[in-house]
Amino acid sequence: MEIYMKKITVLKSDIRFISYAAVGGYEERRGPLGEKFDFSDPTDRFGQDTWELAESEMGKVALNTALTKMKLSHSDIDLLVAGDLQNQCVASSIGLSGFGIPFVGVYGACSTCTESLMTLSAFMESSEALKIGAALTTSHNSAAERQFRMPIEYGGQRARSAQWTSTAAGAFILGRRSGIDSPWSEKPKISAFMPGKIVDGATADGSNMGGAMAFAAAESILDYFSESEERPRDYDYIVTGDLGQVGSDILKDILREKLPGAENIHTDCGLLLYDREIQDAHSGASGCGTSASVLASHFLPLLESKKINKILFLSTGALMSPQSLLQGQNIFGIAPIIKLTSPD
Amino acid sequence: MEIYMKKITVLKSDIRFISYAAVGGYEERRGPLGEKFDFSDPTDRFGQDTWELAESEMGKVALNTALTKMKLSHSDIDLLVAGDLQNQCVASSIGLSGFGIPFVGVYGACSTCTESLMTLSAFMESSEALKIGAALTTSHNSAAERQFRMPIEYGGQRARSAQWTSTAAGAFILGRRSGIDSPWSEKPKISAFMPGKIVDGATADGSNMGGAMAFAAAESILDYFSESEERPRDYDYIVTGDLGQVGSDILKDILREKLPGAENIHTDCGLLLYDREIQDAHSGASGCGTSASVLASHFLPLLESKKINKILFLSTGALMSPQSLLQGQNIFGIAPIIKLTSPD
Repeated sequence: MEIYMKKITVLKSDIRFISYAAVGGYEERRGPLGEKFDFSDPTDRFGQDTWELAESEMGKVALNTALTKMKLSHSDIDLLVAGDLQNQCVASSIGLSGFGIPFVGVYGACSTCTESLMTLSAFMESSEALKIGAALTTSHNSAAERQFRMPIEYGGQRARSAQWTSTAAGAFILGRRSGIDSPWSEKPKISAFMPGKIVDGATADGSNMGGAMAFAAAESILDYFSESEERPRDYDYIVTGDLGQVGSDILKDILREKLPGAENIHTDCGLLLYDREIQDAHSGASGCGTSASVLASHFLPLLESKKINKILFLSTGALMSPQSLLQGQNIFGIAPIIKLTSPD
Repeated sequence: MEIYMKKITVLKSDIRFISYAAVGGYEERRGPLGEKFDFSDPTDRFGQDTWELAESEMGKVALNTALTKMKLSHSDIDLLVAGDLQNQCVASSIGLSGFGIPFVGVYGACSTCTESLMTLSAFMESSEALKIGAALTTSHNSAAERQFRMPIEYGGQRARSAQWTSTAAGAFILGRRSGIDSPWSEKPKISAFMPGKIVDGATADGSNMGGAMAFAAAESILDYFSESEERPRDYDYIVTGDLGQVGSDILKDILREKLPGAENIHTDCGLLLYDREIQDAHSGASGCGTSASVLASHFLPLLESKKINKILFLSTGALMSPQSLLQGQNIFGIAPIIKLTSPD
């Protein structure tokens, strides 16, 4: 008998990651996880004429790679949930336009990976006819930098608290047993989710988004453990999306005070993607492709091989626009949570 | 015994519109539905210093009005799904930041109203603990025009095929019986949904978005009736979001050929919001607030009073960005469907 709590939804259906893929660019290949990526393009261009289309193409490559691993095709997907950082989320809509798959677009800034997996799970739980679903998240450094900050040719100096938007995509195929013939018992599960709340980041500094998102991450983690009967020690890791060093330090300070012990199992995708000693990442990686590609290249393989058993995964989003910052608005954070477990 | 089809999800739960509200600006008040709006601000400013914050505030007014009608407060809402047209959807995130409600942000351009109601329904269907949910959609003429086209002070001439972005918001409170004490039997239902596919609009003309979206609307309607055992004559109306005159004419031509009879029950929110004889709306209204406010001010009251019994409602979204158009990309359309029925 599953317990239903107010904020946390425990999935009744047995929904698993039947396939996944991580794709990146030059810096991602150079980083510590580079060899675990399924594909990387050292030019960051993915054969396209614009950075924006390069991002679309990168997403397609990630989705196709995940499908190919399980000998699936686009027509096997019953629902696709996707999002990105480009204005009006066009990286997703243009990139996925040729596939003819039922589509739901989400926007959660850098929380998109968790948000899309959570939303896809909710749709799959709502209808048994949805047997195979896909979630896709992309970000592209050169497309994001010129949209959110400066044209990259400008060479503007970045603050030490700033992060490096990753050129990365993560694609995930979720399935139910009736949908596939694969070695089901080896696949990691998504077993629960909890939507995030919009939390004031208490800053309007666009060079410190990790710091702004840390409060949302803390609130989600505290909410989760106050409702669930679990404790942090039941988990191998609590994984945040892209708080970077500045945000991770703030989060750990809060956890140390309010949920002692949780700080010891915290790790952040933004601190895993690049080697900050030799790469120009400052506070760490950011961009919604960060948590998506680190989940697909690092954490899901660890779960699938049973090297770890249970993680709480919360991509962290900074809700703002260049215009909202110019108008003096604070950055707001959001951090939806998914619970991922190894095969039984 | 409900029948589950591949694309259409028939809700098992009895989920109803327990409250709803429409809020608009000057032009919306002047239009044929103006008196049915719950509130309108003739200044379009909603007491704010920027058009962007005016949109956020308008959304808050709509949500608060819908809650107040049923004596509900923010803390009664278990999940809020919202979206808008501003870059990075900041109208929603800034507007709703103070409420502390679990939040899922969606982006579907002008399909947001249907997309958010569909997504909220899927979440509610996935967890019985979610008893009361809210969906909110906003658009603001002055915020959208300067972001997507020209600063309004510029006074640029608009093409005859262009539409007028509405300053309008629609808020919807969905509930299950266990969540409220209200006269349940009087409330209209959401009984099924079908996500849309991304369909090439075959044009890159940003002044003809209705025409671009018509193909997605046609494909969704044809998909729906090819899968369901229903026929168009089972419905009072097939309601599209904001195709305007140009798009509606295209859609009717397609339906006349491929699903004869359907064209006779088609109507479009973009043709209902303004009086095109005396208002400067050209091809009609657009903006995601259009279908949201027309649903809340016009169609839901008709369903609640049993003047009509069943409608197929599909807000229509044009997936593009100003940059994607400058880069020569086509406009893509999407049209998710929800089925709405009168109380038993």
